[in-house]
Amino acid sequence: MNILQIINAKKKGKELTKDQIDFWIKGVMSGEIEDYQTSALLMAICLVGFSEEETFNLTNAIIDSGIRVDLSEFYEKSVDKHSSGGVGDSTTFIVAPIFAALGYKCAKASGRGLGHTGGTLDKLESIPGFHINLDKDQFKEQVKNIGIAVISQSKDMCPADKRLYTLRDVTETVDNVGLIASSIMSKKLASGVKNIVLDVKCGRGAFMKDLDSAKALAAEMVKIGKKAGKNVVAVVTNMDYPLDEFVGNSLEVYGALNVLQGARNNLYEVAITLCSELLTSMGVENARAKCDEVLNSGLALEKFKEMIKAQGGDLSFLNKEHLLNAKAIYDVKAPASGYVDDIDPMAISGCVMLLGGGRLKKTDTIDLYCGVETKVHIGDHVNEGDTIATIYSKEKNEAAINKVLEAIKIGQDIPSKPQMILAIQN
Amino acid sequence: MNILQIINAKKKGKELTKDQIDFWIKGVMSGEIEDYQTSALLMAICLVGFSEEETFNLTNAIIDSGIRVDLSEFYEKSVDKHSSGGVGDSTTFIVAPIFAALGYKCAKASGRGLGHTGGTLDKLESIPGFHINLDKDQFKEQVKNIGIAVISQSKDMCPADKRLYTLRDVTETVDNVGLIASSIMSKKLASGVKNIVLDVKCGRGAFMKDLDSAKALAAEMVKIGKKAGKNVVAVVTNMDYPLDEFVGNSLEVYGALNVLQGARNNLYEVAITLCSELLTSMGVENARAKCDEVLNSGLALEKFKEMIKAQGGDLSFLNKEHLLNAKAIYDVKAPASGYVDDIDPMAISGCVMLLGGGRLKKTDTIDLYCGVETKVHIGDHVNEGDTIATIYSKEKNEAAINKVLEAIKIGQDIPSKPQMILAIQN
Repeated sequence: MNILQIINAKKKGKELTKDQIDFWIKGVMSGEIEDYQTSALLMAICLVGFSEEETFNLTNAIIDSGIRVDLSEFYEKSVDKHSSGGVGDSTTFIVAPIFAALGYKCAKASGRGLGHTGGTLDKLESIPGFHINLDKDQFKEQVKNIGIAVISQSKDMCPADKRLYTLRDVTETVDNVGLIASSIMSKKLASGVKNIVLDVKCGRGAFMKDLDSAKALAAEMVKIGKKAGKNVVAVVTNMDYPLDEFVGNSLEVYGALNVLQGARNNLYEVAITLCSELLTSMGVENARAKCDEVLNSGLALEKFKEMIKAQGGDLSFLNKEHLLNAKAIYDVKAPASGYVDDIDPMAISGCVMLLGGGRLKKTDTIDLYCGVETKVHIGDHVNEGDTIATIYSKEKNEAAINKVLEAIKIGQDIPSKPQMILAIQN
Repeated sequence: MNILQIINAKKKGKELTKDQIDFWIKGVMSGEIEDYQTSALLMAICLVGFSEEETFNLTNAIIDSGIRVDLSEFYEKSVDKHSSGGVGDSTTFIVAPIFAALGYKCAKASGRGLGHTGGTLDKLESIPGFHINLDKDQFKEQVKNIGIAVISQSKDMCPADKRLYTLRDVTETVDNVGLIASSIMSKKLASGVKNIVLDVKCGRGAFMKDLDSAKALAAEMVKIGKKAGKNVVAVVTNMDYPLDEFVGNSLEVYGALNVLQGARNNLYEVAITLCSELLTSMGVENARAKCDEVLNSGLALEKFKEMIKAQGGDLSFLNKEHLLNAKAIYDVKAPASGYVDDIDPMAISGCVMLLGGGRLKKTDTIDLYCGVETKVHIGDHVNEGDTIATIYSKEKNEAAINKVLEAIKIGQDIPSKPQMILAIQN
């Protein structure tokens, strides 16, 4: 077997065998297979296709390139949520506490923000003192005791995914459902969790732009997970607009806190659906009511605080004064009267980028306290001069104001309210 | 413009513009575009297709990556022949002398053998003293005076082709007609010759295995050449069998000498067709008769000797005793009686490889005096025990004998004689 035969087989439309995929990924890791060979193969996969079986085998080959986390101590109760990435998406801070409050074990390995999507670790680090330096045993102990812990994804887990993804990113070979699904699912399966809910974002602010491709990705990931013996459910959610009013690192912690303290908005709707769909698939009856109960009683908020405290975070920081704080706070006014008929998530995240709150490359340093708070929703009526958004940054930034004005469009017709939950796949 | 947009455009089936192709090749040469990006683009080209216009633009971009030879002093009379590579193909040693004998100027830049195909330079170097170390002025002077000179292709000519070819070779992206045509034609066009005859080999021993693909390549190359203002004709010739009885470096010099001294076999047929088709396209009347005349009169042989002498070669070596000389010379006998119904060119060249006469990689040192002389032709009747081939090597090699037995098949039915000239494209 050699890599040329494998590239040739895929180029000619053949299905790669498990042995061929294993050989490829082992060669990628050992360096025997060159990047230019892998990129040719990736392009052939994008153009020719990658079957469900190939995707499953690639997922396992990627898992086998690194370590697997052992959560056998509380395997049946272990839960995880994954989002394919969007704007203003702080569901983790609501979903994980709800699970923990209900007695489940949420062992979360998260990442940092890149491009237009924020990262859970960055957001948490806006809370002074919060650290992610837990060793394996501390991590498991915290999950066992509190029901929730968040750490950085180990470099030893799925290293082949990192290699492949880096290459896909610079060779226009990202957009294949099989490759995306294996990248996401390898990490989820290696993390040792049994019950997984996947939030597949769909729309302009998401990786999957249309419902068909989002559903295809959801279906593929659920199949891989089930084939691997996991309990997996996917929810396709709307990312045509920012999920929450708060976009930016510390702002998104505040957005989640808002829901944990009683706000019932789009962020709440998505979070509660993710929780209840997973619990229902686990056989829990009246799941949604149970989630609402721990949310309404404040038990979920307590779990969130317990986690922050256990990881060194300053609890006195969890309020509006601290999380929505910046040297310059200034409003964006409606340029005309009418109905809000668009809030472009890419322009809103572009605004946060302008302010220094996002990364273009992994090594960029970011400002954790800048961001945008939109004050209107699709369909709201505004008068010219009304405040439609507030910007938080180090100094007043005219370009950022223009970016918000570009994002929020005001028209004369009343638009229909966007639907948040687009599909359930299980 | 950036390479990701270019890869994406091709991936989506778009035709690349001249600017995009120029940007790509300049980036390949400057190192700004990485090999893994070029290989992804090459794979997309192979799977999506490459138009005539794209091929022409790529050809020019490759030419612009290096120097162009200036043959303006004798441009109208300048001629060149290119072969797409086969087994037992020493037509250059017949074609070039015929052209020179008729007053044309054959300025030949040749290469070394690689894989199953031999190289003109290696073959000539089997003649003691022969060297290819002519500088630019010496080279032109010799072409002007004698009408023929052979040197190694300059590294400064079409360097982008070398970069692309090296990558294509290790990423399974060789077999696209546009890429092959631009690789061949860029070098031919940069060499400054006006009149070009292309010998497109077709069959098991050739790069193009079937007539349709050989004709497609021929048509593509002729179109590029004409668009560049050249006079180009292509001849598709049979490479289902070794072209000549003699295969191996010094053996092929002998094979050509044989024709220059009067043999009228398949090698002769292909050589005379290449010459006469090009001359006819140049407006020469009765071209074939004129070629035969200089061949029969010995004038072509004289030109060959003049060239060898001018480049330091020992003329006393140009005979059977020296060219068919090896420590071990041994026969292969017919294993049965019947009719010769196959001589597999890949098995014959595989035999020469076994004997050390061919290169697997460019840095391999080779034995210039080993080879195989087949003593039978398709359709010949042989009796069991008749000599069907003679092997020349350093020591007797049983594996080589088996390889020849694998190549030459004897059956009970009389097969039809293979046709040598399969198509003419002009």
